[in-house]
Amino acid sequence: MKFSSRIKSVEASTIMELLTYAAQAKKQGKKVYHLNIGQPDIKTPENFFEAIANNKEEVLEYALSEGLHELREAIQKYYREYDINFDLEDILILNGGSEALFFTMLTICNEGENILVPEPFYSNYNSFANAVGVEIKPITTFAENGFHLPSKEEIVSKIDGNTRAILFSNPGNPSGVVYTKEEINMISDIAREHDLWIIADEVYREFVYEGDYTSLGNVKEVEDRVIIVDSVSKRYSACGSRIGSLASKNKEFMGEILKLCQARLSVPTLEQIGAVELYKTPNSYLTEVNEEYRERRDVLYNELVKVPGVICKKPTGAFYIVAKLPVKSADDFVKWMLSDFEIDGETVMPCPAEGFYKTKGLGVDEIRLAYILNKEDLSKAAKILKEGLEAYLKLDR
Amino acid sequence: MKFSSRIKSVEASTIMELLTYAAQAKKQGKKVYHLNIGQPDIKTPENFFEAIANNKEEVLEYALSEGLHELREAIQKYYREYDINFDLEDILILNGGSEALFFTMLTICNEGENILVPEPFYSNYNSFANAVGVEIKPITTFAENGFHLPSKEEIVSKIDGNTRAILFSNPGNPSGVVYTKEEINMISDIAREHDLWIIADEVYREFVYEGDYTSLGNVKEVEDRVIIVDSVSKRYSACGSRIGSLASKNKEFMGEILKLCQARLSVPTLEQIGAVELYKTPNSYLTEVNEEYRERRDVLYNELVKVPGVICKKPTGAFYIVAKLPVKSADDFVKWMLSDFEIDGETVMPCPAEGFYKTKGLGVDEIRLAYILNKEDLSKAAKILKEGLEAYLKLDR
Repeated sequence: MKFSSRIKSVEASTIMELLTYAAQAKKQGKKVYHLNIGQPDIKTPENFFEAIANNKEEVLEYALSEGLHELREAIQKYYREYDINFDLEDILILNGGSEALFFTMLTICNEGENILVPEPFYSNYNSFANAVGVEIKPITTFAENGFHLPSKEEIVSKIDGNTRAILFSNPGNPSGVVYTKEEINMISDIAREHDLWIIADEVYREFVYEGDYTSLGNVKEVEDRVIIVDSVSKRYSACGSRIGSLASKNKEFMGEILKLCQARLSVPTLEQIGAVELYKTPNSYLTEVNEEYRERRDVLYNELVKVPGVICKKPTGAFYIVAKLPVKSADDFVKWMLSDFEIDGETVMPCPAEGFYKTKGLGVDEIRLAYILNKEDLSKAAKILKEGLEAYLKLDR
Repeated sequence: MKFSSRIKSVEASTIMELLTYAAQAKKQGKKVYHLNIGQPDIKTPENFFEAIANNKEEVLEYALSEGLHELREAIQKYYREYDINFDLEDILILNGGSEALFFTMLTICNEGENILVPEPFYSNYNSFANAVGVEIKPITTFAENGFHLPSKEEIVSKIDGNTRAILFSNPGNPSGVVYTKEEINMISDIAREHDLWIIADEVYREFVYEGDYTSLGNVKEVEDRVIIVDSVSKRYSACGSRIGSLASKNKEFMGEILKLCQARLSVPTLEQIGAVELYKTPNSYLTEVNEEYRERRDVLYNELVKVPGVICKKPTGAFYIVAKLPVKSADDFVKWMLSDFEIDGETVMPCPAEGFYKTKGLGVDEIRLAYILNKEDLSKAAKILKEGLEAYLKLDR
């Protein structure tokens, strides 16, 4: 049977092979600290579950294609607290940030057109793009300067007649970078000068540990070309709810993408009822979570940089660290950690970072660490990682 | 700002304009019986809500991309009762039948390729196809013979070098047709002889009121090319849960489409927990629901065919009736019903059927009725519709 060339161009998840190594390690009785995935361990606010349990509707009906009115209002209110003023029709509910990104690509790009994305980037951007024939043109950033953007000239040099947008996550997954106001202004200038859309993936916007955060929602000059992707997944540790949102003041864009929302009918009703409550979570929850993650980052970062040759600027956002290691192959290092190394029967699983790069050959000596374990476990994991890396380097593999 | 030509080719929901007529009628104090949408009024089995309310997990984590193991097992068991034997890896959980169809199109078709679909068909097939540059080539069927398929020769004449699949819903939305064993065999033969995929949308498979039902899952000769789309939405009146599934014995297909499932991470965890329980609903629930719908169909059908000139064979499946009316414009008739007609302050809203046809000019004199109201209301609605139609015909519009 024949398959489309576009599906053939979508890469399978590369973590599967490594997970078999992890499974093998566990079979041998090893405890594996998983720093390879962005699944937080923080408790989901109870009001989410309560609202769903309290549902009294006996018929579980389709919700409106644009999303529950109450949820869109809750998101409108959330943004207003940051001085971002959306009309209700500027906000749509999507099946996670994933669907928001996928539908956005379909709405603004034809096959053969392209989108600029700073690399390393969330690898599923590439899956969505390949599935619909859109090319991602990477703007390479480096561990040496904490994955901040290159010069305006370098970015502009990537633009061609088929470029339709700049897409980035800020704070960055996997890099943990938080772009400065100057960087955001530079992106805005480029978008205006070259008539590009800006797709701002701000799902980690509440996870900023030092310095200011500049949302694209606050840049008046580009409000007609900004599309903000957001989600409750990380913010409220509700990944499994798959409630995302899109916001844009470009009414024509909202009208066009709504057609795709109508085609898939609606987003789950109960999850939306729960999500309304998430947006009512007191700010103290976010403050506490933020403080917790900041401490975790410090624990992990401080161990990691003890190893000579590790290149890593302290990230200031999200809950990831990307580090360049003095190794030939991070993939080999991760496999070795799982199969050949342990301290008191315990080891650590980082994620090789190669999959976050579009440019072949980049990231092969880098790992991404997600600091999603409690401090006690993370502290142990950080020490095991440091000692494992030191032992591995002595092997000269 | 520029939009993609593919999004421009997706049509907006046409029901919106008519809904403003309905809203206007309600403002004037009229009661409107909505027969225009496929949202059942049947109660969702309580065990769905109970399972979700009883969830004890404090962190709402991502589910596996392929779906909860327990849910896939439940679906495997469901099919086994119909002598359809899928391995667990032959089954994937999707965000409704919608995502299942959308991902399937991406997996088997490139831009510019086409899929044969008997018309009238579920209009969102066209939205998904247009969004990804796939052409739907209609195989026209007619009210006069209950929307059964034309000859093999006629279907084969539509196939060209870019044809990749035959897609249909069986029982049919909007037509209510249930294909005979001979028709299913004909489709299977065509698919084998012309190397096509068969996408069988069987979401209404439990709604069959007379005669046998032949699932594509039971046709051994084409098991390597059949993709079955299913959903809990209608079967268990759980439209708002958005839990759909895909099943295929073509392992390569399952591997390819899984990449798209991985890219969008997962389907909501709680809804899947609830859906596991739906599949445990005793068969008596489905039998009762079936009996209820059969009676409703008869109530509506019997009134409708009293009007001279109405062409409609009694449909045997799903919960829709498509009728050809002796009018110039069904759209005008529906508007008139909403704005100019009433009996004791009540009127009815059918759905014009033009949007279910790809061929321009077809369906302009047809309506689709969804029998999704309780018998008492439906009985009133049927009489109002009959009298409204009779009155409208006298106007000679």
